[in-house]
Amino acid sequence: MPHIALRTDLFGITSLLDYRRQSAGPLCQLTQLLLRGPSTLTEAERELIATYVSYRNDCAFCSTAHGAASCQLPGGSQDLLEAVQRDVSTAPLSEKMRTLLLIAGKVQHSGRAVTPEDADAARQAGATDLEIHDTVLIAALFCLYNRYVDGLATVAPSDPAFYEALGRRITTRGYTMPENDYQPLFYEKK
Amino acid sequence: MPHIALRTDLFGITSLLDYRRQSAGPLCQLTQLLLRGPSTLTEAERELIATYVSYRNDCAFCSTAHGAASCQLPGGSQDLLEAVQRDVSTAPLSEKMRTLLLIAGKVQHSGRAVTPEDADAARQAGATDLEIHDTVLIAALFCLYNRYVDGLATVAPSDPAFYEALGRRITTRGYTMPENDYQPLFYEKK
Repeated sequence: MPHIALRTDLFGITSLLDYRRQSAGPLCQLTQLLLRGPSTLTEAERELIATYVSYRNDCAFCSTAHGAASCQLPGGSQDLLEAVQRDVSTAPLSEKMRTLLLIAGKVQHSGRAVTPEDADAARQAGATDLEIHDTVLIAALFCLYNRYVDGLATVAPSDPAFYEALGRRITTRGYTMPENDYQPLFYEKK
Repeated sequence: MPHIALRTDLFGITSLLDYRRQSAGPLCQLTQLLLRGPSTLTEAERELIATYVSYRNDCAFCSTAHGAASCQLPGGSQDLLEAVQRDVSTAPLSEKMRTLLLIAGKVQHSGRAVTPEDADAARQAGATDLEIHDTVLIAALFCLYNRYVDGLATVAPSDPAFYEALGRRITTRGYTMPENDYQPLFYEKK
């Protein structure tokens, strides 16, 4: 049960975005920019960074929702996602993505853990300054989301079909706020 | 030295807001809302939450800057700040602020650490749902900022006069973005 009174027909982050629309506006804008805006990282790569950080923070709602999104996008797959969750150093990734995910994993623990050698390794693998910047900011943003979602004990449905449907919503509509009220997610219950 | 090429006349978060103005916009808007918007928590109380989380994340730039701001605002003081950093459970705080800071401290570690008993204790001490919500979101936001500032190794000046001047800027101007370029902070070097 959530620690505060939230709509019971909404779950996870959606119940919080609905609760305080004034903070939801800039949060959605920042997420849309970082995960869906113009970038030399693919949408699947950016969703994978978000998923990896959420998984390391043990946030069931965010890691399952963004994991579903990363698998549904071109270039993503369940096999890749599971390999990353097992071990970034052996997962079938480009060297650029491997070095960026290693940075994201350090940011999940603490910004202070990222070394000049981590940044140099990413650059040697072809990452630009902007890609390193956005990786750090996406990782930091999901450290916010994971704490927001779990710190208020929002409800995470257990049915995988919910996250498949949520993944489809965020891969097709993105993260822009609805003009009117948040709508519950209707899906085929398994 | 920062991990990416940033302006050398700007420091900490300011050098990052300048580097990517598109992400700076929503970040500043969210911060202005949470720390300066209408609230039943005072500005000093909200800056104290930000400072406490930044201190626990060992982020020198954010904890010193927001610590200075919290001391400059009505109701804040260096003595109170130091007592909170020593031990929230013995610091001279209202029971409401003590329970909210205990929640913020748990969010700094993990959202999953916040228990129904923590939320109940805050409510018993007079906290509203919105105050609990905003405490969690401010704590989560500074977990983002601390990782962003340190994950890219931005420069934190060592001169206390810098943070006094920065505190004055954010207590008088707030967190709205400048229309034009970010200006370096001129201050009397000690």
